[in-house]
This record gives sequence, C-alpha cells and structure tokens, in this order.
Amino acid sequence: MRLTPRDSSFFDLLTASAEHLVTGSKLLAELLGADRKTRKEIAKQLSDTEHDADEATHAIMRRLNQTFVTPFDRDDIYELASALDDCMDFMEEAADLIVLYRIEELPARVADQVQVLERAAELTCEAMPRLRTMKDLSDYWVEVNRLENQADKVHRKLLAQLFDEITDPIELMKLKEVVEILEHAADAFEKVANTVETIVLKES
Amino acid sequence: MRLTPRDSSFFDLLTASAEHLVTGSKLLAELLGADRKTRKEIAKQLSDTEHDADEATHAIMRRLNQTFVTPFDRDDIYELASALDDCMDFMEEAADLIVLYRIEELPARVADQVQVLERAAELTCEAMPRLRTMKDLSDYWVEVNRLENQADKVHRKLLAQLFDEITDPIELMKLKEVVEILEHAADAFEKVANTVETIVLKES
Amino acid sequence: MRLTPRDSSFFDLLTASAEHLVTGSKLLAELLGADRKTRKEIAKQLSDTEHDADEATHAIMRRLNQTFVTPFDRDDIYELASALDDCMDFMEEAADLIVLYRIEELPARVADQVQVLERAAELTCEAMPRLRTMKDLSDYWVEVNRLENQADKVHRKLLAQLFDEITDPIELMKLKEVVEILEHAADAFEKVANTVETIVLKES
Repeated sequence: MRLTPRDSSFFDLLTASAEHLVTGSKLLAELLGADRKTRKEIAKQLSDTEHDADEATHAIMRRLNQTFVTPFDRDDIYELASALDDCMDFMEEAADLIVLYRIEELPARVADQVQVLERAAELTCEAMPRLRTMKDLSDYWVEVNRLENQADKVHRKLLAQLFDEITDPIELMKLKEVVEILEHAADAFEKVANTVETIVLKES
Repeated sequence: MRLTPRDSSFFDLLTASAEHLVTGSKLLAELLGADRKTRKEIAKQLSDTEHDADEATHAIMRRLNQTFVTPFDRDDIYELASALDDCMDFMEEAADLIVLYRIEELPARVADQVQVLERAAELTCEAMPRLRTMKDLSDYWVEVNRLENQADKVHRKLLAQLFDEITDPIELMKLKEVVEILEHAADAFEKVANTVETIVLKES
Repeated sequence: MRLTPRDSSFFDLLTASAEHLVTGSKLLAELLGADRKTRKEIAKQLSDTEHDADEATHAIMRRLNQTFVTPFDRDDIYELASALDDCMDFMEEAADLIVLYRIEELPARVADQVQVLERAAELTCEAMPRLRTMKDLSDYWVEVNRLENQADKVHRKLLAQLFDEITDPIELMKLKEVVEILEHAADAFEKVANTVETIVLKES
C-alpha cells in the first residue's frame, strides 16, 4: 500500500504506455512502404513493441491493484490502460496480417488510415503527462474525436473502393480484414480520448 | 454541480435518445422496400438521425459528469446511454452499407430482422420514462430478451440461407456483413434492457 | 437482502457456471471427430448446455442484485459471470455454425484450438471454488494466460493455412468464421482469468 507521492508514477506509466503507441504507429507506416522482406522485419519489431506495451499495461494494473489511493477513479485508470493496450494490439495485428496474407499492394487510402493513427498516437502521448494537472486536455480529445470521424469516412470509402476494384474474393477478404482492424485501432484511440474526457470532467 | 430536482432531466434525456431509435428503425424499414435512388436519400436521413442521437448521448454524458447526485448508479446511466448509442450506430451502419455496396435484393428475412429492431425501439422508448418510478418495467425487459432470442434464430437461419442460395462470394460477403450488423443492433437493444433490469433490481 | 453466510453460495454458483464450460468444451471436441449426423445431435446437446449455463448466469445476476454484502467487489462478480457466459456462447456458436454450414472437413489445427479450450475450462472450473479462500489462484491465471498466447499463435497459423490451402472463397469464409469464434472463446477464458487476478490482487 502506497500513498499519493509514489502514485504520481501512474502518469509516468501511462505516458510510457502511450510512447509505445507512437513507436508502433511509425513502424506500421514504415511497413506499408516497404518491400516484402523488409515488411517481415518491421512486423517483428512491431511485435516486440507490442510485448513492451503489454509489460507497461501489466505494470499499471499491478500498481493499480496494490495502491490504496489513486490520483483519479480506479476504474477510469483501468479503462485508460486497457484502451491504450487495445490501440497497440490492433496495430500489431494489422501488421502481422499484411505479412501473413502476403498482401502485395495496399490501396493508397490505407496509408491515410495509418496516418490518422500516427497523429492520434502523438496526441495521446503528449496528453498523458497533462493528466497530472488535468489542464489543457480538451484540445486533445476534441482533435482525436475529429480524427476518428475522419478515419471512419476514409474507412467507408475504402470499403466501397475495395468492393468496386478487387474482383478476386480471396484478395478482397484479406484487404477487408486489414482495413477493418485499422478502423478498430482508430476506435480504440477515440476510446482513450473519451476516457480522458470523463476523468477530467469528473474532477472539474 | 446540481442536486436532485434538475437531475430528473436524465429521464428526459434518455427518452429523447430512445426516440431517435424509433425514428431510425422506421427509416431502416422504409429503406429496405425502396428503390436505389430513394434508399440513398433515406440513408442520408438515417445518418442525420444518428448525428442527433450522438448529440443526445453527449448531453447525457456531460450532465452525468457534472452532476453530483444521480437518480441511480452513475456507471449504469453511462452504460445505458452508451448502449442506446450503439443501437443507433449499428442501424446507421447497416443502412449505409446497403447503399455503399449497391445491394439490389435483400432476402425477406432481413425485413424480419428489421421488424424486430422496430419493435425493440418502440418498447425501449416507452420504457425510458418509467425509469422515473422504476415501476412496470419487467414486461419490457422480458419482451426485449424474447425479441433478441427471436432475432438470433432469424439471424442463424439467414446465414444458412445466404450460404445456400448466394453463389457469388462477393455478393455473399456484402449480405453477410449487413445481416451481422443488424444482429449486433438486436444485441445492443438487449444490452439496454439488461442494464435497465440491473438498475431496477438494485433499487428494489 | 441477505448477509454474508448465505452469500457464500456465490462460489457455488460460479463453480456451477464453470462446470457447464467443461461439459461444453468436451462436447465441442467430440463434435469435431463425429460424422455429420452425430454432429447435429452433439450440437443440440451443446445448445442445451448453453441454456443451462444461461440459467446459471441469471441466477448469479439475480443473487448479485438482491444481495447487500458480496464476498468481493460487486462489479467484479458481474464481470466474472458475464465472461464465463461469453465462453459458453462462443463455443455453442462455433458448434452450431459447423453444423449449419455443413462443413465437412476441418483442419487439424482446429482440434488444437478446441484442446486449448478444454484445458482452459478444466482450469477455470478447478479455480472457482478457490475464490472462497483466495489462495493458490496465481498458477491458474498464469496458465490460462499462457494457453491464450498459445491459442493466438495457433489461430494466426490457421488463418495463414486457410488462405494458403482453401481455394473456394465460400468454403474459406465458413472456416474462417468458425476459427475466429474459437479464438474469441479463448479470449473469453483469458478475460475470466484476468478478472480473477484483479479480484485476488485487490484483496491481498
């Protein structure tokens, strides 16, 4: 059982978790532009990053379960850590499937999807330390919600495009799955932002 | 921070949210019977309804986060508002995909799925104001659970039928996705009913 | 309203719920090796088991909502009961779809997936009564987490194999769906284990 001073490290742990998301999203963007052999290496790095993120999540959970006084609502910290973890899981899964399915060419809009994830990861990483003071966070959640709406529009256009252009049903299944997982990643970033909003509004 | 009297508006806000579901489910039923051009217009109306429902959800969340005393458990109100929002999101997504995928013909059982959603929306909308007194709600949740079981059976029969009758795999993918999203909508209505049951049983 | 002594039956109710999972996972394993006619009968038995499990879940929920003092955090019991229920739902759905889609041959790795579920069900069933003393539970959650990692690896290899070997897109869609639902079942068992871990760490 520890009291408040040591608990400030929740902010450090959440920031560390979000830093893995920045690394992960950059690797994912890199993977899209790479040749097949390099893609495999990058997917391996992303898988390692996912393991690191997993460790960070478990560190938050352990601290959460062993700490009597938390800087804000216990369940909200749990939800925040889980949502950060989900962002990484979806990005790693997308990368792994691109390699596993030996997808050659991805539509240009997939790069747009990943760009949104990169931006959302950066914003999330900058926001985490600001939870300490609970100040200047509304720009963050407004912007991530805007990004998610944009991602949703890109996603539906991509779906229509896939069904218009891809005539091989098996190729279509592969691409559709990757595109959907990237959309789940964007949703997960929005979930993080919504949880931060809830935390801040409760405390205000 | 507001105390109980003003908080009674939670019931109004939840009812407003459920009214959008009635509008949405009726539009969805209308869309099924329409020609392609009219479908596009109806899908646009459903998308507007979804935006209104989104606003209603945000109003509940804001009120929730700024209110000290809530008429029942804070987390249950949050879950109720989220579940209502999910019902609308799935209905809007189904309508949008029917248009986006330029689906010509839908099996008759899809209309059965949507009829269940219409009935569930009406029941939900009638139930919300009764949360004020917590009375006469068990018929509602029993009936929505029954409807969801019925929807589940229709859904599985539809899946079997699609795989039996549709030989074009790409057409099959499109129809299967629409049918699954409508099943998610039925699940979301059941989630609303289960949350209402939890709220009532806690208070009894 | 009942106080602690009668509440000890939460452990019995949770154990009863987990026993249905052992029955269900054994039926699922049996179904894989059976001919088509016998598969239909076994799927019917699994559907009956799912109904029994549903009853068990509702009994936990009713008890939860009517009990003032619970042996551990109310929301954690709710989450535990829901997660146990999800394990069963996914196993029943997989069995039903194998029959409904008239799948003839399943890849050998599907039996590996189901073997993981059988082991996870046994471990879960042995763990539930130990919640009474909160002792000797860490081996359980560590092992289920290990099993889920193993299931995840089997799942991704299976996906790659399906896309490599199955050239009929409609057959591929059927098999992919079954394989994914079995993966969801493994995730649900992990969710049960994570909830048990949370409960134990909170109390320690």
